[in-house]
Amino acid sequence: MIDIAILGATGYTSLELIKILLRHPETRVVACTTRQEGNPPLHTIHQSLYGRIKLNCEDLTPAQISERAKFVFCCLPHVASMEVVPALLAGGCRIVDLSADYRLNDAAVYAKWYGHEHLDPSRLSHTVYGLPELWADKIPSQALIANPGCYTSASILGLAPLLAADCIKPQEIIIDAKSGVSGAGRAPKLGTLFAECNEGVAAYSVGGKHRHQPEIEQVLSTFSNQSVEVIFTPHLIPMDRGIIATIYAPLKRAATQAELLSVFREFYAGKPFMRVVDHLPSTKDSANTNFCDITVRVDRGRAIVISCLDNLLKGAAGVAVQNFNLMCGFPETMGLL
Amino acid sequence: MIDIAILGATGYTSLELIKILLRHPETRVVACTTRQEGNPPLHTIHQSLYGRIKLNCEDLTPAQISERAKFVFCCLPHVASMEVVPALLAGGCRIVDLSADYRLNDAAVYAKWYGHEHLDPSRLSHTVYGLPELWADKIPSQALIANPGCYTSASILGLAPLLAADCIKPQEIIIDAKSGVSGAGRAPKLGTLFAECNEGVAAYSVGGKHRHQPEIEQVLSTFSNQSVEVIFTPHLIPMDRGIIATIYAPLKRAATQAELLSVFREFYAGKPFMRVVDHLPSTKDSANTNFCDITVRVDRGRAIVISCLDNLLKGAAGVAVQNFNLMCGFPETMGLL
Amino acid sequence: MIDIAILGATGYTSLELIKILLRHPETRVVACTTRQEGNPPLHTIHQSLYGRIKLNCEDLTPAQISERAKFVFCCLPHVASMEVVPALLAGGCRIVDLSADYRLNDAAVYAKWYGHEHLDPSRLSHTVYGLPELWADKIPSQALIANPGCYTSASILGLAPLLAADCIKPQEIIIDAKSGVSGAGRAPKLGTLFAECNEGVAAYSVGGKHRHQPEIEQVLSTFSNQSVEVIFTPHLIPMDRGIIATIYAPLKRAATQAELLSVFREFYAGKPFMRVVDHLPSTKDSANTNFCDITVRVDRGRAIVISCLDNLLKGAAGVAVQNFNLMCGFPETMGLL
Amino acid sequence: MIDIAILGATGYTSLELIKILLRHPETRVVACTTRQEGNPPLHTIHQSLYGRIKLNCEDLTPAQISERAKFVFCCLPHVASMEVVPALLAGGCRIVDLSADYRLNDAAVYAKWYGHEHLDPSRLSHTVYGLPELWADKIPSQALIANPGCYTSASILGLAPLLAADCIKPQEIIIDAKSGVSGAGRAPKLGTLFAECNEGVAAYSVGGKHRHQPEIEQVLSTFSNQSVEVIFTPHLIPMDRGIIATIYAPLKRAATQAELLSVFREFYAGKPFMRVVDHLPSTKDSANTNFCDITVRVDRGRAIVISCLDNLLKGAAGVAVQNFNLMCGFPETMGLL
Repeated sequence: MIDIAILGATGYTSLELIKILLRHPETRVVACTTRQEGNPPLHTIHQSLYGRIKLNCEDLTPAQISERAKFVFCCLPHVASMEVVPALLAGGCRIVDLSADYRLNDAAVYAKWYGHEHLDPSRLSHTVYGLPELWADKIPSQALIANPGCYTSASILGLAPLLAADCIKPQEIIIDAKSGVSGAGRAPKLGTLFAECNEGVAAYSVGGKHRHQPEIEQVLSTFSNQSVEVIFTPHLIPMDRGIIATIYAPLKRAATQAELLSVFREFYAGKPFMRVVDHLPSTKDSANTNFCDITVRVDRGRAIVISCLDNLLKGAAGVAVQNFNLMCGFPETMGLL
Repeated sequence: MIDIAILGATGYTSLELIKILLRHPETRVVACTTRQEGNPPLHTIHQSLYGRIKLNCEDLTPAQISERAKFVFCCLPHVASMEVVPALLAGGCRIVDLSADYRLNDAAVYAKWYGHEHLDPSRLSHTVYGLPELWADKIPSQALIANPGCYTSASILGLAPLLAADCIKPQEIIIDAKSGVSGAGRAPKLGTLFAECNEGVAAYSVGGKHRHQPEIEQVLSTFSNQSVEVIFTPHLIPMDRGIIATIYAPLKRAATQAELLSVFREFYAGKPFMRVVDHLPSTKDSANTNFCDITVRVDRGRAIVISCLDNLLKGAAGVAVQNFNLMCGFPETMGLL
Repeated sequence: MIDIAILGATGYTSLELIKILLRHPETRVVACTTRQEGNPPLHTIHQSLYGRIKLNCEDLTPAQISERAKFVFCCLPHVASMEVVPALLAGGCRIVDLSADYRLNDAAVYAKWYGHEHLDPSRLSHTVYGLPELWADKIPSQALIANPGCYTSASILGLAPLLAADCIKPQEIIIDAKSGVSGAGRAPKLGTLFAECNEGVAAYSVGGKHRHQPEIEQVLSTFSNQSVEVIFTPHLIPMDRGIIATIYAPLKRAATQAELLSVFREFYAGKPFMRVVDHLPSTKDSANTNFCDITVRVDRGRAIVISCLDNLLKGAAGVAVQNFNLMCGFPETMGLL
Repeated sequence: MIDIAILGATGYTSLELIKILLRHPETRVVACTTRQEGNPPLHTIHQSLYGRIKLNCEDLTPAQISERAKFVFCCLPHVASMEVVPALLAGGCRIVDLSADYRLNDAAVYAKWYGHEHLDPSRLSHTVYGLPELWADKIPSQALIANPGCYTSASILGLAPLLAADCIKPQEIIIDAKSGVSGAGRAPKLGTLFAECNEGVAAYSVGGKHRHQPEIEQVLSTFSNQSVEVIFTPHLIPMDRGIIATIYAPLKRAATQAELLSVFREFYAGKPFMRVVDHLPSTKDSANTNFCDITVRVDRGRAIVISCLDNLLKGAAGVAVQNFNLMCGFPETMGLL
């Protein structure tokens, strides 16, 4: 039984994390943090947890956290995360960091996209990016894992097999992604009010403006040993959860749909959360699960990949527990099926 | 005052058409048709019309229709439409046909995509495609106008100015389109049940399988005098109405966002329903209106055009009345603002 | 042509008001106010107005307003409204006040429910409550009209005819009301975030806690010359707009559904926005219109009344223009059909 | 490990049942039935099950079913259910019947409300109604359990404690209930199309017309040994799942909110799925769980009870597994937390 702390417990990702851990036979959530005053019980922040866990949210220092917990899921916003990670590691905690702070491996790129100097640059280059379908073997030994972004996971999982098999060119790739509103977080903002985003779809951060674009490019370039360039366009969809990435990639040589499906099936053989399907998946098929559904079509010299996952689970809390399981030597699917 | 008949009055497009015509000072709806038995009052088919129009839906022959009405909006499904259009024209009616039957100008292409021999092929080549922003001058004199498809309008309006100004290559164009569920019609089907498509997004007809793809290519090729090829991917979004087309087109030469916005603004100068905007529009901005909102961004050598409209209005009933206004010599915006 | 000012232009009600007035042949919106700095163009606050009206929002004093406009729609929050209404009246403006400030006729009741002393108590007792279906004859001569609340209108319109015909007891009336989220306003709050209220229904202010309860009781008591008591329970529904009030009222004597429908039909004869229907209406039937749909059933000695309207239109901006039309001598329906 | 058959596997309830059973450590789903031809794989009927269970749906006779399975969840429509239950029992199966066929204990009442003679009337009077919070002790020994209706469970769980404690009168009870659309089933119908019920709320079966009204009255009358009468009004809400029952019951004597909450807390002490809460619950809090959230307020001599549950889980598949657990001697919560 591993004692767990969750930092930044008020968001949607933390709620999902707690719900998974309540089912996980080897974990016990012993601390939840928030900066809200008065140590509010967790169920006043997440009403759905009423009666399921008795725990108050506290404003704890890294030292207090590492005294109580062996493992930390860090759901703090970027910058706030790297302010505490070094101390937590020093205190002996192992960490899955769900923020963006340790995903990019170049401090200059971080500073450009996040508008803040990196506070812990020496760790950047060797922190493992926690996408278990690509790097399952590197994850177990780590003390710190950088949990991937939600759009990023959907995009990378849809492209990595085709790049690995050298089926597509690494440039002129277009990722048109659509996400449910929970991806925008739980802080009250005009743009995520119900009456603003219900009954409407809009693109945002169009034209190389979204922080997941450099993350996708870095990970795919590292993975495939070549310079991968993508155009990435996110859209906000009037639904709670789910991401679909519709990906257009120029084929290096003619290929049929069946051949490309085989490439995906071989690449993901034995991966318990990857479902390569013949049909066109809806985000609803993988909602509330840790699965990623992928299929592919071919038209006019391009592979059209459809990649769906739940942004809060396979795109955040679910893959975080998958990383936790690998780090701790538990079965990869524990608590997740 | 022009007497109007609406054929196929039970669908969502017909409802919108009736609501527009109730506001239009120069029209009177005198006949609505359906194959449902018992001549049901219109407000039993569309409850929202209760008290607004006293009219029963009838199963009328073309002869009966042309006896009563001077102008026909034909909202029948494809094939059913071309079964009555010739007789209606012969009877002296002028027609806006909202089906796909007269949009393609090649009977072989029609047969391939609609799985049915064309019944009125001689009219195909010279029926005007009713997109007033491109062909306003040709519309007034016509007896029959082929009203455009909804995805088609959003796509064409987003590409025509860039093709006209020779800014983009006519190949390698990708149109990633998202539509509200009303676009799938009002016939009960599993796939459009609330509990099936709520809280989910899915692509459909992926890989050159949607009938609007050849329509888009034909219209843009005709318009720009070159062979235009597009990849077209439609998605179903959990909302009632609205279409957003996110379009990726390779630039012929480097251009800034400002330059491309100018191209759009010049092309659509004086067009009352085209709004070229600096911001990123939501489909909600044009919902329940006849406007089309367009903007453009640039990334990695591609123009990224965002084009939004209401699929039932600017994509169907609204542009139909716009065509009607032009055909009858009324102001283009009459009944539509 | 009447010059109009709209105070507090950033909310959903103001947007609807502007859209109606753009269609109204006898009005011109000449001023919009906001406390936001920098005189933002209206279309940056309401993107859907792009290209439809050229007007900047300004922070204007009552004196500046009355210099420009003859008629004011006051969409300010309560308290803010009564801070400016006296000066505007003194400046010669006629006003429809959409806040709650002049609805209650007893300053003590106001202070109890709104937690603030009334600043203009002398006007309370004689300000006319702007529900044209009850008091159309009193409205024309007024300089100030208190526009009704949205829940209130749905409830009162569903009960007034039965009270007038002495069909129901004035006690033990239960109003179970459900509203779309736009009714909660446009200020960013956790509870109205999309991911909070989508896919859920909740009651709020249960047990005599909602401010519309005393408003309903006062208006119905005044109208029927007896002490009317109601239990009022509002619910938030995951949709943009619409209110349905399901009302349970004990019958004084046995009555059939047909008899009660006749009572409604007689009471609302000639009222252009009241639709007494045999079927069970959906809020969707009256959405985006100024209609109120009502029907009634009978069970176990109780009338069950269903009353539906659009909270932003017949429940706010629509009835405001209806009041404006009556005040100015225009046809009651002008701009509203 | 118990071998399970699910009859009528295409509906939403069956999908939820299968998902629960995939997590349940003591069950194995060995047969799923449908009348669809061609023995379709389960994942073609429910795409979300892809890769999670390898099973084809078959058209099986009762004899074939009882040969394969020891336990049957019968998700057939009413009438179809009682056509097979006797043979399945004779074949040695134990059954949770999710249809309405064995809920009412009077064949004449059944015939009146379901329009069909009961085919197995002798079993009606002694079949146990499977609401574990009321009759947990009777369930273990049964071969056949009648699983409750969804509205019924929400309503009964909100009233039984107050009746048991003699706090409320058994007449003049009003239940105003709101349900997500999945409650209306998966058969394509106009009324449950997305574009029909999205962005709208409507009441249906108003005035003693819904089949759950006699079910509620029978169960509460049996439970409290007095004649209980309710007015029951269901509404359709634009969301996938969830029911909220807002219940108005006249108090026998004055009582405070705190006293009534205590009545609920005592009654449900030790019941693992009942959460008596101080706050006003949203249906979202219990969505995707087997919990029922209840609170109570007092106004004008009436208790106002709010009762929320997931119509597909605590209102159908979840309570079915709860019954199964009790019947088989497993912990009540197995597979359900």
